[in-house]
Amino acid sequence: MRVTTSFPLGTLRDTPSEADIISHKLLLRGGYIRRINSGIYAYMPIMLRVIEKISKIIEDELNNNGCTKLLLPQLHPADLWKRSERWEAYTAGEGIMFNLKDRQGKEFGLGPTHEEVITIIASEIINSYKQLPQCFYQIQTKFRDEIRPRFGLMRSREFIMKDGYSFHSSKEDLALFYEKMGKAYEKIFKNCGLQAVGVEADSGAIGGASSKEFMVTADAGEDSILFTESGSYAANIEKAVSIPSEPVELETYRSELLETPNQKTVFDICKKNNLDPSQIIKVVIFLAKFEDKTNLPILACIRGDQQINEVKLFNLINLKHSSSLINLDIIENKSIVEKNLVDFPLGFIGPDIDNKNIKVNSNWNKKWFRIVDNSAKNLSTFISGGNKINFHKVFKKYSFEEEEFLTADIRNAKQGDKINAESNEVLKEKRGIEIGHIFQLGQKYSAKLNAKFSDKDGKLKNLWMGCYGIGVTRIAQAAIEQNYDDKGICWPIQIAPFEVIIIPTNFKDPLQMELSNEIYNNFKDNNIDILLDDRDERAGVKFKDAELIGIPFQIIIGRDSINKEIEFISRSNKSKIKIASNKLLETFISETKAMY
Amino acid sequence: MRVTTSFPLGTLRDTPSEADIISHKLLLRGGYIRRINSGIYAYMPIMLRVIEKISKIIEDELNNNGCTKLLLPQLHPADLWKRSERWEAYTAGEGIMFNLKDRQGKEFGLGPTHEEVITIIASEIINSYKQLPQCFYQIQTKFRDEIRPRFGLMRSREFIMKDGYSFHSSKEDLALFYEKMGKAYEKIFKNCGLQAVGVEADSGAIGGASSKEFMVTADAGEDSILFTESGSYAANIEKAVSIPSEPVELETYRSELLETPNQKTVFDICKKNNLDPSQIIKVVIFLAKFEDKTNLPILACIRGDQQINEVKLFNLINLKHSSSLINLDIIENKSIVEKNLVDFPLGFIGPDIDNKNIKVNSNWNKKWFRIVDNSAKNLSTFISGGNKINFHKVFKKYSFEEEEFLTADIRNAKQGDKINAESNEVLKEKRGIEIGHIFQLGQKYSAKLNAKFSDKDGKLKNLWMGCYGIGVTRIAQAAIEQNYDDKGICWPIQIAPFEVIIIPTNFKDPLQMELSNEIYNNFKDNNIDILLDDRDERAGVKFKDAELIGIPFQIIIGRDSINKEIEFISRSNKSKIKIASNKLLETFISETKAMY
Repeated sequence: MRVTTSFPLGTLRDTPSEADIISHKLLLRGGYIRRINSGIYAYMPIMLRVIEKISKIIEDELNNNGCTKLLLPQLHPADLWKRSERWEAYTAGEGIMFNLKDRQGKEFGLGPTHEEVITIIASEIINSYKQLPQCFYQIQTKFRDEIRPRFGLMRSREFIMKDGYSFHSSKEDLALFYEKMGKAYEKIFKNCGLQAVGVEADSGAIGGASSKEFMVTADAGEDSILFTESGSYAANIEKAVSIPSEPVELETYRSELLETPNQKTVFDICKKNNLDPSQIIKVVIFLAKFEDKTNLPILACIRGDQQINEVKLFNLINLKHSSSLINLDIIENKSIVEKNLVDFPLGFIGPDIDNKNIKVNSNWNKKWFRIVDNSAKNLSTFISGGNKINFHKVFKKYSFEEEEFLTADIRNAKQGDKINAESNEVLKEKRGIEIGHIFQLGQKYSAKLNAKFSDKDGKLKNLWMGCYGIGVTRIAQAAIEQNYDDKGICWPIQIAPFEVIIIPTNFKDPLQMELSNEIYNNFKDNNIDILLDDRDERAGVKFKDAELIGIPFQIIIGRDSINKEIEFISRSNKSKIKIASNKLLETFISETKAMY
Repeated sequence: MRVTTSFPLGTLRDTPSEADIISHKLLLRGGYIRRINSGIYAYMPIMLRVIEKISKIIEDELNNNGCTKLLLPQLHPADLWKRSERWEAYTAGEGIMFNLKDRQGKEFGLGPTHEEVITIIASEIINSYKQLPQCFYQIQTKFRDEIRPRFGLMRSREFIMKDGYSFHSSKEDLALFYEKMGKAYEKIFKNCGLQAVGVEADSGAIGGASSKEFMVTADAGEDSILFTESGSYAANIEKAVSIPSEPVELETYRSELLETPNQKTVFDICKKNNLDPSQIIKVVIFLAKFEDKTNLPILACIRGDQQINEVKLFNLINLKHSSSLINLDIIENKSIVEKNLVDFPLGFIGPDIDNKNIKVNSNWNKKWFRIVDNSAKNLSTFISGGNKINFHKVFKKYSFEEEEFLTADIRNAKQGDKINAESNEVLKEKRGIEIGHIFQLGQKYSAKLNAKFSDKDGKLKNLWMGCYGIGVTRIAQAAIEQNYDDKGICWPIQIAPFEVIIIPTNFKDPLQMELSNEIYNNFKDNNIDILLDDRDERAGVKFKDAELIGIPFQIIIGRDSINKEIEFISRSNKSKIKIASNKLLETFISETKAMY
């Protein structure tokens, strides 16, 4: 492609103020994307080339694994999502599905994921176990009405995903295929030139038995990954389990009540009373709202040196109730407290707070759903809220069992924790960007949408399903987080918009023009992705642009054109060689071969 | 691809009842598409291959013409469409844009077309005439909330389009590029194996000076094309102009009033009173609703043997008023008449009906906007409504000028009409399917969205714009309307999902399996799109499926495998030859070369 006639660049001098992380800044400055609205971007020609290269890598690997590409609608009838019982959770409350009514008043959602649509299709085209397994995938724009779109394409409202769905005749076949897809994913990310790791993950709103995320490690990542040095364990913090450290034993206090004026946080109490956080039990109040309109008040207790994991808590509460949990909010708002609770000294609540504190005329359930984290369940002597403003209490010989507590793991694992009681391995922590996620869905969707097949024994059974996502536009941005310097992007060659750029320092010079065109045509004839910057601009401007947009190799055509000599520069390792133009192609090919 | 492991077919035995035209039936029966909702379809793997082939043909030709591919968002902020003054027309009344509010309550439309978005981008990236011309295009799913989705992908609510937008420094450069794109379009449709014609067209809601549609002629087409045998003229009926036939002179009637009991149609009056339709003037009442809420009653008069062209009428009224026309409805509803008009004998209205018939308390304008078609303007003696139930009137020496009539062409040209007063060429009529549309937009959008460039003289000027659409999914279906027989589809090879299919009559036979695999691998190595039907099915089932899905060539592997002989069948011309397997590849290549 030539810059002047068919491939205009749109680099910017200044960094737009909206960008907060480096990859977002570089995408904007490099002219890769342009903002149309909050979380909504246009992919400019140079960006689309990156997207198409990533898509091609994904397609090749999936096709090799017997997957078949199709394209599903983006408008999803509400009726389908009501059958799978996800409509409410995806559209009400914190629901992230854009939705609308058509001219006839019928409701539709804009697809963030396609389990419902593909399951309905599978129910129509799959009859017999002989047709199984099958895996369909698509690469398509998806929609999520993010409450706070940010980080460019990382958390945008329109983004491109590969989503795939597999169908199986047994749980075992699903598990086998899931493993195979995990391997395929590793290969895809490697082929994109990325360093990615697979970690255990929460299944979230998609549901299902088992799931694994693929993470690009980068400081700008929104996720926390916990892992062992040996590689024996890796998990997203949402899912990670560990053994908490031993608590410090509590010495005997003289009085049962402890005056703690304005000491509402664990930190304050410890500081003022010379206590260790592990001697305190923190009580956090949540309100759980269900699809059937139930409002359930939650009392969650955890050791003071630990943090509540809201994903684990959400899943636990959802599992323990027949109706779907839609929202889980911490109760901190004074007016909500006053409306629904009586004599309720927020900041000084103990695990033994009475059910009577819930007002009779509140629309909440009239009994606390009490949960205690494993870290706290064995403590019988500890400090916690005194249920009275400015007072905490010393609990002695307290038994959580007597108060009908549900005991569970609702805690964030953290750096330094042991991975289990037997092992001495401890967890480390890093930030990660999620670029892929695979799930064993089981029969959740097939049961609800009546997608059956007839098995070897002639019996109708629900299909077993897996689902497999890759964030295509996210990969592009994550690759930048792993590959940049102070001058701009350093694309992995596999997904670079062009493999090489020719920069004539003065394109008006007939010698330079001739040599540029000669090399350009020669490279093109050899199917190399080459860009020719034939603009009538100062050389410095062209060098800066080439570095900013991050093309892996540069061919500089200058005064030595007269000797048919050029400079060949590698963007990432900054090597620079002078070379005769007739040796250039073979040098380029041998240099790049090792990189693919 | 192999049917069992990576390319499942989904053919149906019965034709789904929803389909009304042959191409729609064949797409469903062939397993190409599956209906998810009214006007919303999934593109199954075999369909996606057709779509990708068409897309590739379009891309290659556009890239050759210096166009650059990008990808724009599908969610469009309402604000942008309000600036171009299209939001109301596209979302209110008969508006076809799906629209929604996000979680923050902000309005968005789902893009049916992208003039606004691309113009905003152009306004940011184009500064100087030196950067012009430029043309950007994308291939993307578009949305239209059709009031009556039908004919499968022909008039669906989600469909794939190529839309392109060009930017120029002058009207002349735009006109040149528009011509060049017209030529590129002809080539694209030819490369898709289609017979298409370019016709003059109405610019519709897109706006602009000049536009041309590309039509595939087919009986199932929704459009009427009028053209001369010589090719000197071709236009969509919405736009076509012609000279109406001469009227029959009216003999003198004895009385002014003509009793016409229950004779509300031209046909009835002519039959009962021995008149010719050209001796009558038909008066049709419309109500025009504008964006500024004006309701303007329209009195449209035309000769009784002619039909009103509502597109011409709409454009005329829109042009004559400062506010945008949103709806134009015929007034036939009795309750609307009674609410707004007094003493109004619908069916017996004459061109001289009084303004006083509009009720004082109606929210309509109190004066008829009177329009007379060219076909009627010179008649001074004619029959028309008597403004009294069951009476018509003989008008003698009537002058339209006296009544403040706007004279214009608001008539449908029709088969047999002369194309102009000088020529003897007459119009013929055919049905057509619109597959492409190009427009000279002029400065409509750049003026409204403030997209300027600095010209050679250093002055800021509005960009000149063109826009260019191709219906990708429509092409696929239109190709079927032109290429099918009683057994199924006969794809043009250029856009067929596969070029050739291998059908072993008994795949369990080791000889057949070996020969099938040998041919399959040989063809694949030569980059031929080949499908191997390796199912354990009866030969008859496989033959029927191959014919239905319409792969251009079939390789039948049967008992002659032992002699390494196979049958080679052309789907479209039904030729069948026996051939040695080692001659097959070269025969295939020479047969197909001529077809591309």
